[in-house]
Amino acid sequence: MGTVGTGVARVLLQHGDRLARRAGRPLVLRRAVVRDLNRPRGLELPAGVLTDQLAAVLRDPEIEIAAHLVGGIHPAREILLQLLEAGKDVVTANKALLCECGDELFARARQLGRTIAFEAAVAGGIPIIATVGQCLSANQIVSISAILNGTSNYILSQMARENWSYDQALRKAQELGFAEEDPTLDVDGSDAAQKLIILTRLAFGVRATLAQVHRQGIDRLDLSDLRYADELGFTVKLLAVSQLVGEELEMYVQPCLVRKQTPLAEVQGAYNAIGLVGDVVGETWFSGPGAGQMPTASAVVADLIDTVAGRTQLNYPRLEWWRDPAPYSLLPAERIAGRYYLRFQVLDRPHVLADIAAVLGRNGISIASVIQHEAPEASSHDATTVPTVPLVIMTHRTTEGNLRAAEEGLARLGSIRPPHVRMPVRG
Amino acid sequence: MGTVGTGVARVLLQHGDRLARRAGRPLVLRRAVVRDLNRPRGLELPAGVLTDQLAAVLRDPEIEIAAHLVGGIHPAREILLQLLEAGKDVVTANKALLCECGDELFARARQLGRTIAFEAAVAGGIPIIATVGQCLSANQIVSISAILNGTSNYILSQMARENWSYDQALRKAQELGFAEEDPTLDVDGSDAAQKLIILTRLAFGVRATLAQVHRQGIDRLDLSDLRYADELGFTVKLLAVSQLVGEELEMYVQPCLVRKQTPLAEVQGAYNAIGLVGDVVGETWFSGPGAGQMPTASAVVADLIDTVAGRTQLNYPRLEWWRDPAPYSLLPAERIAGRYYLRFQVLDRPHVLADIAAVLGRNGISIASVIQHEAPEASSHDATTVPTVPLVIMTHRTTEGNLRAAEEGLARLGSIRPPHVRMPVRG
Repeated sequence: MGTVGTGVARVLLQHGDRLARRAGRPLVLRRAVVRDLNRPRGLELPAGVLTDQLAAVLRDPEIEIAAHLVGGIHPAREILLQLLEAGKDVVTANKALLCECGDELFARARQLGRTIAFEAAVAGGIPIIATVGQCLSANQIVSISAILNGTSNYILSQMARENWSYDQALRKAQELGFAEEDPTLDVDGSDAAQKLIILTRLAFGVRATLAQVHRQGIDRLDLSDLRYADELGFTVKLLAVSQLVGEELEMYVQPCLVRKQTPLAEVQGAYNAIGLVGDVVGETWFSGPGAGQMPTASAVVADLIDTVAGRTQLNYPRLEWWRDPAPYSLLPAERIAGRYYLRFQVLDRPHVLADIAAVLGRNGISIASVIQHEAPEASSHDATTVPTVPLVIMTHRTTEGNLRAAEEGLARLGSIRPPHVRMPVRG
Repeated sequence: MGTVGTGVARVLLQHGDRLARRAGRPLVLRRAVVRDLNRPRGLELPAGVLTDQLAAVLRDPEIEIAAHLVGGIHPAREILLQLLEAGKDVVTANKALLCECGDELFARARQLGRTIAFEAAVAGGIPIIATVGQCLSANQIVSISAILNGTSNYILSQMARENWSYDQALRKAQELGFAEEDPTLDVDGSDAAQKLIILTRLAFGVRATLAQVHRQGIDRLDLSDLRYADELGFTVKLLAVSQLVGEELEMYVQPCLVRKQTPLAEVQGAYNAIGLVGDVVGETWFSGPGAGQMPTASAVVADLIDTVAGRTQLNYPRLEWWRDPAPYSLLPAERIAGRYYLRFQVLDRPHVLADIAAVLGRNGISIASVIQHEAPEASSHDATTVPTVPLVIMTHRTTEGNLRAAEEGLARLGSIRPPHVRMPVRG
């Protein structure tokens, strides 16, 4: 009974009639398990509901379903297993757990004739698990491109709109509660990658580990990157992408240049959005709140209703999740192909552009366009620092492997100062 | 086996493995009923499948499900009833039929222990029936605002983008197959209203007839209206809206001014888009192809799979569709409230604006802003026509009833030439 649990309890208590009508029978909130019985919850629970004993749930045969709203891996994994062993169907919102232990938990549930529903684990209020697992069942999904981390999207939106630095936008996100005290998992792309791993398993039957997903965060971006992107007709978004390239699956989480006035480019603030391409339906788009107490509670309660109504039991064993062997293999990161945005901080002296172009060329990378604005007067008058200027290059189509090889060559040039930034271009 | 039927047959024949995996057992295309056996279909059917006898389906006890892809009301209604009587579950894409005879057909299906699935009847490739009827089951939907007619949206998009007249854009839509020879039902808002009626029944349990939906088409709009809207920061879209106002439901289909850079404003071409606000989840958005052979086939096949898997049977009796009595009443059109855009063609002479403002004021309508550009020189030199100029007024919040009363007063002024245009402002 943390934030989401309190939201779920509120819906169960306040909208019982609605839920009973839709589930076919009443949903009764029997127990709410908490660590600290005395912590204020902002919600009046019926007498006898609150307990600090998980056993009160496990041993009660009248409890058929448990909403498992526990973060992290341990003891979340052990609690989920105990619930299954005790004969409960489970609804969970824990993406990290599904990502790391999903195979074990799913297999155990199936052995025991139980189900695990997980709409709330990905993109909060957007019913994307049902969409991929059921609504688009006529299709082979061929591509997923999504904004799955609201914190990063809020930071990028604010940087672009308010001309803020990354640090300013992050602080504001923390003040507003959109970012954690330690925002690492949000801004380094891990959170988005975990959600992408779950969607990818459902849409493609492909299992990937966090280590296998080519991943880059937004924490190395500078406001100037957003400005250059804008100048080139793009918006910068942290995208999570899985797409079929022949019989292989390209998968990454990276800040990308997204063409303006396309659906993903226009997603503002802490929202999530997902573009799905199916081989029958074509392109579809879904967006909504990706997190937060009530959006997530909405997904949890929908799963509770589906489980009470018996729909989860029908759907669960038929998910693409279960495919074995996987029908597609992961494309090695080196072979991810596309156009790229590159920004270097270079010494303001002759031949630098020629040297860089030569290294890129030797590695099979051809240049589509270059932006190099004149250095501001101030920097050339300041004798205490080495005068450097930003150099932005848009490449023609190349591969991640070529870029990595080129970067080794560039590091030896001596005319480039770290950090440098690289983003794929989409659309 | 028209356009959509051929698409459904193609998916069934080409993707049998995929469908069997997801449905839990194979889907076999047993019969395809056509009027003319000799018409080319662009698809090779197995021997014995094609027939011109509906009885071949009705009398075959091994056929459990029928995809009912027949347009219009008669004999579509009679065919659907015969299929139900013969013990078949039915999947239909016929929105007009559900809108007009839905109560009768649904009741008969239930009496017979059969189901009718209808994802394909609204917004083609967008799984909006499942979303409203199942995925958002924790919520009371409080508002639907949607672009449900691809033809109208294509026409409006092209007018705005290419500076085309309504007639030019309509002709282009007809050339491309986005508009029928007789486009009336698309451009007068009937098609969108039928889809809205189905969504409204599902989301609010409210039954409305076509005659009850306050409805206006795009056929009276002029390119100048799109230009003025643009000048004011809006895009013109044909919106279908159902939203709760207290315990009453406001429902209309009208061209509206939608604030630029909001999700509906950015929907281009023949796409559909739907914004749903739920009391738990907040605001969510869905978009995709609203019609066409394969998007619609995608929805039909998803329904076939749901019916084979047994999910339709669980879901169908629990839809809000069945609520009786309806929990909300329809708000009379006169009480629909909002800000409005008004364009008049007025005589270019003194006092006209004052006269109009006086009539509006007497009817409780106050003016927020006015656009009246200087008349082009040419018109004042042309003595054979009465010189008129466009006058655009943005009102403060008022009601449809006040506007109707004001329009009667304005008609008596003598200084206004028809037609005049009125659009609500959203956002």
